[in-house]
Amino acid sequence: MSLIVVGTMAFDALETPFGKVDKIIGGSATYVAWSASNFCNNIKQVSIVGGDFPQKEMDALAKRGVAFEGVEVVKDGKSFFWSGRYHMDMNTRDTLVTDLNVLAQFNPQLPDAYQDCEFLMLGNLVPAVQKSVINQLKKRPKLIVMDTMNFWMESALDELKEVIGMVDVLLVNDSEARQLSGEFSIVKAAAKIQAMGPKFLIIKKGEHGALLFHNNQVFYAPALPLEDVFDPTGAGDTFAGGFIGHLAKTKDISYSNMKTAIIVGSAMASFCVEKFGPSRLQEITMEDITDRINEFVELVNFDINLV
Amino acid sequence: MSLIVVGTMAFDALETPFGKVDKIIGGSATYVAWSASNFCNNIKQVSIVGGDFPQKEMDALAKRGVAFEGVEVVKDGKSFFWSGRYHMDMNTRDTLVTDLNVLAQFNPQLPDAYQDCEFLMLGNLVPAVQKSVINQLKKRPKLIVMDTMNFWMESALDELKEVIGMVDVLLVNDSEARQLSGEFSIVKAAAKIQAMGPKFLIIKKGEHGALLFHNNQVFYAPALPLEDVFDPTGAGDTFAGGFIGHLAKTKDISYSNMKTAIIVGSAMASFCVEKFGPSRLQEITMEDITDRINEFVELVNFDINLV
Repeated sequence: MSLIVVGTMAFDALETPFGKVDKIIGGSATYVAWSASNFCNNIKQVSIVGGDFPQKEMDALAKRGVAFEGVEVVKDGKSFFWSGRYHMDMNTRDTLVTDLNVLAQFNPQLPDAYQDCEFLMLGNLVPAVQKSVINQLKKRPKLIVMDTMNFWMESALDELKEVIGMVDVLLVNDSEARQLSGEFSIVKAAAKIQAMGPKFLIIKKGEHGALLFHNNQVFYAPALPLEDVFDPTGAGDTFAGGFIGHLAKTKDISYSNMKTAIIVGSAMASFCVEKFGPSRLQEITMEDITDRINEFVELVNFDINLV
Repeated sequence: MSLIVVGTMAFDALETPFGKVDKIIGGSATYVAWSASNFCNNIKQVSIVGGDFPQKEMDALAKRGVAFEGVEVVKDGKSFFWSGRYHMDMNTRDTLVTDLNVLAQFNPQLPDAYQDCEFLMLGNLVPAVQKSVINQLKKRPKLIVMDTMNFWMESALDELKEVIGMVDVLLVNDSEARQLSGEFSIVKAAAKIQAMGPKFLIIKKGEHGALLFHNNQVFYAPALPLEDVFDPTGAGDTFAGGFIGHLAKTKDISYSNMKTAIIVGSAMASFCVEKFGPSRLQEITMEDITDRINEFVELVNFDINLV
């Protein structure tokens, strides 16, 4: 039940209506690893950082079963840095700064110990890097999950479509699904995207939940209504981590188990937004997670008794 | 299990990205009655129309158990007319024309035969009229459900709040809930609105479903993802009709049965949007409705098996 996680490990500076932080730990692979390591203790990280990235952050994840052999450390380089400001609705944000730094030279070489992994999570990255990782695996994983974003649809569409054709599960948000398919209707968009290759498509809708499409089936997972969304940074990656973490733990990639995995991912994301950065993920226990998942069960539970 | 429905019976002219109609039957009470009459055959309509309103439209509803004694016909007057244009996302629309016509003189007098009704549905109307109907009932109904809209929050807030304090269930959409409460967080907005009086609050989110709040409990009903939303006019009223129709049929106003009623309302609304005006509601059978409700069961059904 080993899981490869490919993505960024980085610094973020954030402004939300609730506060501001100058430089905290971030990056898609960071959030995925914190989330997935609740369910799976054999995670193999693939990323690149500068000499400025704190060793103690990697040590904290290593204690949870995350391997860093595949993380390149460029001693005299600086880690990827992103800065953004969220609007009141927390669904829209402005990017203030994007400093690629060492990410500009990211060309991961998979260590031998990473071969034979059963699950592969491709965090949001340039499609060429995602493709390179898939191609370096001698044996195709049992399941490949891919996250991406609108930026690549605008700047590298052909390469993006090629990678989409190689994966089992694609994660996008609703506006990205519309952009990728050219269809306004989410149902039509889902059909077109499935025709590009992925047998499973997850469309994330933030506070409105997420949809899972598979053939002609659809599953609607709600988001837990929260009193405050403090900082949405990393919520999508945390969702992905909970999703693939549950699948890697159970080794069951059926549609039915993917529905459960989406609830697990939604529960993890609902923790992530409660504090700045990954800090909330670093303090929760399995008991907290189980309680939160039970709240989801209560949230959607109804009896059909039409008399 | 009699149900009073108060609202408009009107003409609409509509433009959507899929087409245009010049003058079709509309009005909140029309949609509520078409929807609720699938579940309850003792409906007492309260409205006002001009001499131009087709008798055959009332005859069609009368066959389904809808009484029109409380509908004032102003022979030399014209019925309320609304014209609007929907944008591509179908969630936003421009009002092109609002001709109040006979609605400007609407001052309903409840017939004696309408007393002792157990359920009261107050469709979106000037709050003074909604209040007048409540006050005319000698015995308070078992359940009063009220719909309203942002227009009254801007033009008659004090009177609106007074009526809100008199009802059991309030229906608003998410932006209206924020406007009414002054809170951006939906959870905080729901708490503030419940403190105004209604023990139950339903927040409608269009294609993102609906939330039911009751004390500290919350239920999330999804909307069925649809291939095409042809015309959203009346979807909220149709939802309300299915909701109160199911409650009137079952005579059970528990939180648990309200969750079921929301699923019934959501299923009815999903039919409404498939064609212009109420035409789709006029052709569906109970079998269609049951099939659609079962689709909702499939949509949200998942197993929690965390192994």
